[in-house]
Amino acid sequence: MPLVTVTITREGATPAQKARIIQGVTQLLVDVLGKNPATTHVIIEEIDADSWGIAGEPVTTRRLRGE
Amino acid sequence: MPLVTVTITREGATPAQKARIIQGVTQLLVDVLGKNPATTHVIIEEIDADSWGIAGEPVTTRRLRGE
Amino acid sequence: MPLVTVTITREGATPAQKARIIQGVTQLLVDVLGKNPATTHVIIEEIDADSWGIAGEPVTTRRLRGE
Amino acid sequence: MPLVTVTITREGATPAQKARIIQGVTQLLVDVLGKNPATTHVIIEEIDADSWGIAGEPVTTRRLRGE
Amino acid sequence: MPLVTVTITREGATPAQKARIIQGVTQLLVDVLGKNPATTHVIIEEIDADSWGIAGEPVTTRRLRGE
Amino acid sequence: MPLVTVTITREGATPAQKARIIQGVTQLLVDVLGKNPATTHVIIEEIDADSWGIAGEPVTTRRLRGE
Repeated sequence: MPLVTVTITREGATPAQKARIIQGVTQLLVDVLGKNPATTHVIIEEIDADSWGIAGEPVTTRRLRGE
Repeated sequence: MPLVTVTITREGATPAQKARIIQGVTQLLVDVLGKNPATTHVIIEEIDADSWGIAGEPVTTRRLRGE
Repeated sequence: MPLVTVTITREGATPAQKARIIQGVTQLLVDVLGKNPATTHVIIEEIDADSWGIAGEPVTTRRLRGE
Repeated sequence: MPLVTVTITREGATPAQKARIIQGVTQLLVDVLGKNPATTHVIIEEIDADSWGIAGEPVTTRRLRGE
Repeated sequence: MPLVTVTITREGATPAQKARIIQGVTQLLVDVLGKNPATTHVIIEEIDADSWGIAGEPVTTRRLRGE
Repeated sequence: MPLVTVTITREGATPAQKARIIQGVTQLLVDVLGKNPATTHVIIEEIDADSWGIAGEPVTTRRLRGE
């Protein structure tokens, strides 16, 4: 029954990579908690880098400095 | 005061359908819990089908099999 | 496939009321968007009134004034 | 370590405004709760006005009436 | 930089199980998307079974029938 | 109209601190984006330290090492 939301910056994750995330997270919940995969949902949300801040700065600003 | 988030796959929900969802959820919370509609918010989030997984697979893959 | 999160203040919603919310929201998504109820999840989250603010004030403060 | 999600209607918030939100929220959590800014994330999510309802109506409908 | 929220029913997940979930999800995001683990957060939220509905019914009701 | 969710570890934030967070975030959104405070909601969610992971480890483990 778990619901998992994976929030990442939008920078070109491919459908194949998303499928691996979905598969891997679902299997992990089966293995560790014995959850039923049939009712496990995984949602991947992508956020623009200028809408995500760490340490008080947008990720876009951090990246300009090479972080 | 309730906040409701309705997360669906992005596949052409119309403004009229969204308005019906907003109206119906708000009324339900008034009817069942006596909530004040004036402070009730309903947000509809749409997610691409390849970013949503069920049972370890993206919805896009399930649909190719007719599920 | 929808996921719905209903966030309310914690003030004694009963299991029967929660069941009505779950049933009503699910039916609404079937009726308006033709969603499959079998993969529809509804989660009710309850938040303490002093952890919820409207108009810059905790709900607890508003209630002391009768709002 | 806090995570903050700021959900607003999509209507032209600029990168500079988003940067001020990120900076201001992070500083507030440092000042009030002594949180470590290095592990504080702020995410700004923008929602289309017809996907956001208040008082049972989409924001788009409210705005047509001048609200 | 990812943020992951894992929402499960509250039924006795142990600290050791939670640690495995945190470790496994973080590693998956490193492996598949090359994310920096230092800025990866994983939050596990537990929801009472009578506050979670599937197919229009609380999980508590489904379990009484052995589902 | 903004909705803000502030997610922190549960470690004794007081009602007065929560009220300052609510007031400060609301004012920031008024100042930067011209939002209407009357429809601004701020929700503070508290998560147990063993349910929150950074860099692949629960916060509880990091704290035992003095981080």
